[in-house]
Amino acid sequence: MNFAVSHKDILEAHDRIGSFIHRTPILTSQRVNEIAGCELYFKCENFQKVGAFKARGGLNAVLSLPEEQRKNGVVTHSSGNHAQAIAMAAKMAGVPAYIVMPKTAPEVKKKAVIGYGAEVTFCEPTQQSREENASLIQEEKGATFISPYNDYAVITGQATCAKELIEDQEDLDMIVTPVGGGGLLAGTALSAFYMDNRIDISCGEPEGAMDTYLSMKRGMITKVDQPQTIADGLLASMGDKNFEIIKELVSNVFVVNDQEITEAMRLIWERMKIIIEPSCAVPVAAILKNKEYYAGKRVGVILTGGNVDVGKLPF
Amino acid sequence: MNFAVSHKDILEAHDRIGSFIHRTPILTSQRVNEIAGCELYFKCENFQKVGAFKARGGLNAVLSLPEEQRKNGVVTHSSGNHAQAIAMAAKMAGVPAYIVMPKTAPEVKKKAVIGYGAEVTFCEPTQQSREENASLIQEEKGATFISPYNDYAVITGQATCAKELIEDQEDLDMIVTPVGGGGLLAGTALSAFYMDNRIDISCGEPEGAMDTYLSMKRGMITKVDQPQTIADGLLASMGDKNFEIIKELVSNVFVVNDQEITEAMRLIWERMKIIIEPSCAVPVAAILKNKEYYAGKRVGVILTGGNVDVGKLPF
Repeated sequence: MNFAVSHKDILEAHDRIGSFIHRTPILTSQRVNEIAGCELYFKCENFQKVGAFKARGGLNAVLSLPEEQRKNGVVTHSSGNHAQAIAMAAKMAGVPAYIVMPKTAPEVKKKAVIGYGAEVTFCEPTQQSREENASLIQEEKGATFISPYNDYAVITGQATCAKELIEDQEDLDMIVTPVGGGGLLAGTALSAFYMDNRIDISCGEPEGAMDTYLSMKRGMITKVDQPQTIADGLLASMGDKNFEIIKELVSNVFVVNDQEITEAMRLIWERMKIIIEPSCAVPVAAILKNKEYYAGKRVGVILTGGNVDVGKLPF
Repeated sequence: MNFAVSHKDILEAHDRIGSFIHRTPILTSQRVNEIAGCELYFKCENFQKVGAFKARGGLNAVLSLPEEQRKNGVVTHSSGNHAQAIAMAAKMAGVPAYIVMPKTAPEVKKKAVIGYGAEVTFCEPTQQSREENASLIQEEKGATFISPYNDYAVITGQATCAKELIEDQEDLDMIVTPVGGGGLLAGTALSAFYMDNRIDISCGEPEGAMDTYLSMKRGMITKVDQPQTIADGLLASMGDKNFEIIKELVSNVFVVNDQEITEAMRLIWERMKIIIEPSCAVPVAAILKNKEYYAGKRVGVILTGGNVDVGKLPF
């Protein structure tokens, strides 16, 4: 199979962003393993810069821009973590950043973006409002749009996370991620494909935004109207660049509801003493709901982020 | 100076309990360092077995018991973490455990103790009720009482935490802990004294239970009536065995109030994405309140535990 992102692209991206990111630890918990019935290896991107794996894609996209494009800055729309990632990357590269955020995004994410010195525009919490606002800025400022997921440089950056996981934890049988727009899932699948193609790639998806599940079932991108879920980082619809990779390399999409997501989040908080956001609990919920699929396997789980409003918890 | 616990005792304790505990990681955060104005090295005992450093002292005390004392079991009173530690240690050693817990202890701690198969007696949340109930059981069952802190085997076990910290992070200028009964503080001071006596030892104490501050000031153990603080693990009064060590080796006791404790706890949650309980936030609050004292230093901080009821947060 031939993909638009090569193994060499991933290696170069890791070199490009390596000094700006953390090589995050892999944690394990005997008690969570007992509950799940398999061996889980948690890649803790909640400890990543900006509190999420999105730092990887954002940095790779901004640092890959040619000099002449940098001066007009970059623009994106995001419910939070990609926004922070682009704001941080732009600050490091010394370029202006224009960020469109839904006004419903968690306070902690809004504050962080503003803290990086980005210019923020708040929009309605719909895909349409996000895209319209970003387009306007793109035209006005001549800034380069960086999609939160439907962008090869972003996918390549996200792929560096599974690269580290596979390097640091040998003999994994499987890797599980959440899926929103598909950047992390596509990047993860590519790293596994190039580094050890026996690794099974599956994902968890919130029931209220199950466009990936439907798209995989029908073999074509299928959007869901007005997606709604507690996993606010996974509302976006699958991008076409992501889908061309995901449909070839991902074996299963497991759907979980908000209650299952909340319970999985609480389990990780209580048993592992680490903070993960609802979106991040989705693959954990998927594993707990599909124990026979993961039974006895060595399973890498990408814990994607920890940016939760601790003053507004679902439990 | 001569202390009842020798360097050899600490080394032997570490060998005794080493295979039952985690060598917990040391985490750092650039942003927390910026806020604090010093270099902080967080020894994450919130990731320890039973979610707290107390596993160390509990295991050392139970595993040090002669065979003939083991069969009648062990008894203790604790607001939670020491209870879990003794229950776990007793389970591992195959001896009965009788635990007296104040009925106001967090649910998550009660459940865990019962989960280890200990026999639990709930008492009033006062030192007197705890002690009376434990004495009764001691007489009835012939069980050996293990103090949560006023016990050399417990102090020696707690000392293994600073031993690891000093081994894993060289060139520390200072170490800071919380103080309740004084087991961790005494053990920490002893490890530093034997391994690198240039390391300054200070502690944070809640205003509502500031008996250590008063005791140090007056040079004699001074209790506080009806201590009250959000740091529910630090209500106990200084033990005499602890005080004989602490008064010689600890340079400062910094008092912090419940609001400062809550803010420090939230800071660690939000910036580091790890869960710490209020008692554990006390040394962090002490550092943030006394920035001139810690300015520019390399400061080890023992994050003592993460057993907080996530359904009942102070923010």
